[in-house]
Amino acid sequence: EHSSVLYCLCTIFLSLALPSLNLPPSLSQGTRDYNPKQMAIRERVFNTIIRCFKRHGAETIDTPVFELKETLTGKYGEDSKLIYDLKDQGGELLSLRYDLTVPFARYLAMNKITNIKRYHIAKVYRRDNPAMTRGRYREFYQCDFDIAGQYDPMIPDAECLKIVHEILSELELGDFRIKVNDRRILDGMFAVCGVPDDKFRTICSTVDKLDKMSWEDVKSEMVNEKGLSEEAADQIGQYVSMQGGMDLAERLLQDAKMSQSKQACAGLTDMKQLFSYLQLFQVTDKVVFDLSLARGLDYYTGVIYEAILTQNCPVNVSATQNGVDEKAEEGVSVGSVAGGGRYDGLVGMFDPKGRKVPCVGVSIGIERVFSIMEQKAEASARKVRTTETQVMVASAQKNLLNERLRLTAELWNAGIKTEVMYKKNPKLLSQLQHCEDSGIPLVAILGEQELKDGVVKLRTVHSREEVDVSRAELAEEIKKRTSDV
Amino acid sequence: EHSSVLYCLCTIFLSLALPSLNLPPSLSQGTRDYNPKQMAIRERVFNTIIRCFKRHGAETIDTPVFELKETLTGKYGEDSKLIYDLKDQGGELLSLRYDLTVPFARYLAMNKITNIKRYHIAKVYRRDNPAMTRGRYREFYQCDFDIAGQYDPMIPDAECLKIVHEILSELELGDFRIKVNDRRILDGMFAVCGVPDDKFRTICSTVDKLDKMSWEDVKSEMVNEKGLSEEAADQIGQYVSMQGGMDLAERLLQDAKMSQSKQACAGLTDMKQLFSYLQLFQVTDKVVFDLSLARGLDYYTGVIYEAILTQNCPVNVSATQNGVDEKAEEGVSVGSVAGGGRYDGLVGMFDPKGRKVPCVGVSIGIERVFSIMEQKAEASARKVRTTETQVMVASAQKNLLNERLRLTAELWNAGIKTEVMYKKNPKLLSQLQHCEDSGIPLVAILGEQELKDGVVKLRTVHSREEVDVSRAELAEEIKKRTSDV
Repeated sequence: EHSSVLYCLCTIFLSLALPSLNLPPSLSQGTRDYNPKQMAIRERVFNTIIRCFKRHGAETIDTPVFELKETLTGKYGEDSKLIYDLKDQGGELLSLRYDLTVPFARYLAMNKITNIKRYHIAKVYRRDNPAMTRGRYREFYQCDFDIAGQYDPMIPDAECLKIVHEILSELELGDFRIKVNDRRILDGMFAVCGVPDDKFRTICSTVDKLDKMSWEDVKSEMVNEKGLSEEAADQIGQYVSMQGGMDLAERLLQDAKMSQSKQACAGLTDMKQLFSYLQLFQVTDKVVFDLSLARGLDYYTGVIYEAILTQNCPVNVSATQNGVDEKAEEGVSVGSVAGGGRYDGLVGMFDPKGRKVPCVGVSIGIERVFSIMEQKAEASARKVRTTETQVMVASAQKNLLNERLRLTAELWNAGIKTEVMYKKNPKLLSQLQHCEDSGIPLVAILGEQELKDGVVKLRTVHSREEVDVSRAELAEEIKKRTSDV
Repeated sequence: EHSSVLYCLCTIFLSLALPSLNLPPSLSQGTRDYNPKQMAIRERVFNTIIRCFKRHGAETIDTPVFELKETLTGKYGEDSKLIYDLKDQGGELLSLRYDLTVPFARYLAMNKITNIKRYHIAKVYRRDNPAMTRGRYREFYQCDFDIAGQYDPMIPDAECLKIVHEILSELELGDFRIKVNDRRILDGMFAVCGVPDDKFRTICSTVDKLDKMSWEDVKSEMVNEKGLSEEAADQIGQYVSMQGGMDLAERLLQDAKMSQSKQACAGLTDMKQLFSYLQLFQVTDKVVFDLSLARGLDYYTGVIYEAILTQNCPVNVSATQNGVDEKAEEGVSVGSVAGGGRYDGLVGMFDPKGRKVPCVGVSIGIERVFSIMEQKAEASARKVRTTETQVMVASAQKNLLNERLRLTAELWNAGIKTEVMYKKNPKLLSQLQHCEDSGIPLVAILGEQELKDGVVKLRTVHSREEVDVSRAELAEEIKKRTSDV
């Protein structure tokens, strides 16, 4: 009995003492902060991508980070288990968004929008096994561009591929290839090869593994795990090894077996059309019609595509270190940096009358792009600036704080990005050191003499050159000297 | 018994039938989508604010949308009940961030950062009663600028006020005033007026209501609800009616009662210093030392401030329609558009050794700014553009889709923001109509004759003027004509 009283007292004591006993703070598993350097890189990447989206006339929207649970229900198949739910604190059942596509479809249906070209850059949430060294997080950015509307076939689809081409070229991530296929071609192929209707999706997801497993292993999974006949598997094997361009689409349209499937023919005819537009857009150099491309998501109904980097960059190596390439965000393999396709049925799932709005879109695998850019920045001799400060107002003498602040305000008011040290009497050396550290190119130095003469000593940090500039002309002179910043 | 079987069957039937019976989709209470027009306004506001932050040499960081629950525990007092928790799906207990200040303090402590000037613009979450017509949401943006570090007194504090002054001036929201006070002055005042130590915080929150209640009502709350003596209340009443500038700080330093409080004297000396810096920054025209300013949050330790719009704009009217002004986000009253102060103890709460990092910061009430800007846009005759498209490639004749696409790609490759209709043979009128609707200033019209001549007919939408431009010079000509876009 004594011991239980003691235990009780201890518990009370501990619960009183603990709040003041700070443990080192930490983050939730699979999430991360972005420090200023990472933010500077992120901003550059976003600017490049947004510039491209705007060049193509896209608007942007934003949606809440959580949706009613029912909005997400039944949209992601097996992956639904990865959805973050909010605690029921009295009220609605809510979930964090899993991607940007379902909220987009919900937005279109809710606002009865039948035509829009929009981009959306925002974070999404998945309770996946984090693999943060490989750039896989539970909170990560998606960067989506979609075209909704009833249009003549393959024109918006071709624009999506043009956009992928532009973005990957401008980001200078190295050489890349864009694989293209069509769900209707896949389904038609499965039908003519003798795959039973109810096995289409599961065989499709086995085919999807061809970029990381040998054909023998894929065939074995089809036959031994999924119960497909060996004959059907072999027939599939012949098709999925095919790669080409418009010529391949034409050849398959003449193919004795393929041509028996209406679905396949519709897909192949559109594929031909797609390539003709891609020629006009001058991007066929990077695009391959690849019958092994399947993609994970259920909602695709037509053309699908995926862009992969073909150079062996360091991220690739670490991602494949166990010999098994893993799937990254958006059901996209780790080597892949963009993916998308046509989904004509999703909006209709949200409309009370089932009215469909055809959509096609692309998602840029932005976290992977960040990783690559960060590694490039690490490897480069050039320092990443985290501020854009043009000038630091400094002095070598004491008791000039007020004069420094006055000049600083003058420069702020003239639109110059200016810093000043928050010290009464900082040493000139520490002021110059701060400029070196943070890449500030100019220093405006004030002293008794300069104040008397109505000038400022303008020092160029890298050359240590100094020149007197009249105070009235200082802002203009700084603008001139930093016009490339 | 029959009826219960029937009920059972009905339930089964309904649960089977419901998934295919689409209800109109909706959003979680207190959240909203941003449509393209709202996004265009939001982008403009953000750009103005970020430009100001960068002018002051700030870096930016980002933190995850959810934190470990324990990170937020014990930081918000009573308001903790408004925190969104995530469901325990096996693993850590997580909560959505409630503001950006606590994650910032956690970030500093976790990374042992003792000096930083950073801004952070991101969404925060509060399970409050939404009042969406008044611009109060459960998901809303915060827009914070903070300076962390041990510096000479009041210099960073003055910069925060300068920043508020710059942002509110540039956003052109109408006239404004920035009230300033200091927690040490308030506490000293309470002490010398005879408020018992343990009543400081509760009396402080009653004082905080002076901007929306008469002194009589505030006094009555102090005396009747909070049990303060009438004499003490009357003494407080004399002080809290005082407003002024540096002169008031000087006068109070000589005040027989106030000068007895060391705390008050420290606060008043710093207030004098603050005003001397504000004079150098040329912002004293808008700043008032106001002894009635108290602010809600517990963690402030020194100077506090709040900016209010002084013009009666429409939002103000609707917000005060019941005669009772309500508190908006960030513990800021609805008329207020920015607020902040010094919090020297918060980072220490996260450090295992309690090491303090002094901080001062300001939060811009951005949702309120959005509301005002949206209303201004509604009232204005000028249309808000949601894209930046410079030119539309069009044709009057049939069968020119390929030629249109070819020219469009040429312009994209030249960096021109270009749109083209996704139709084989769109009518010229509908192409021109799209330009009118979305504010596209130029149309590049192709026809058989133009193709033969190697030119394009460049049409200015508003004047309907048309001129032939050689294809080689088209991009340059478009750039020249849209250089102000």
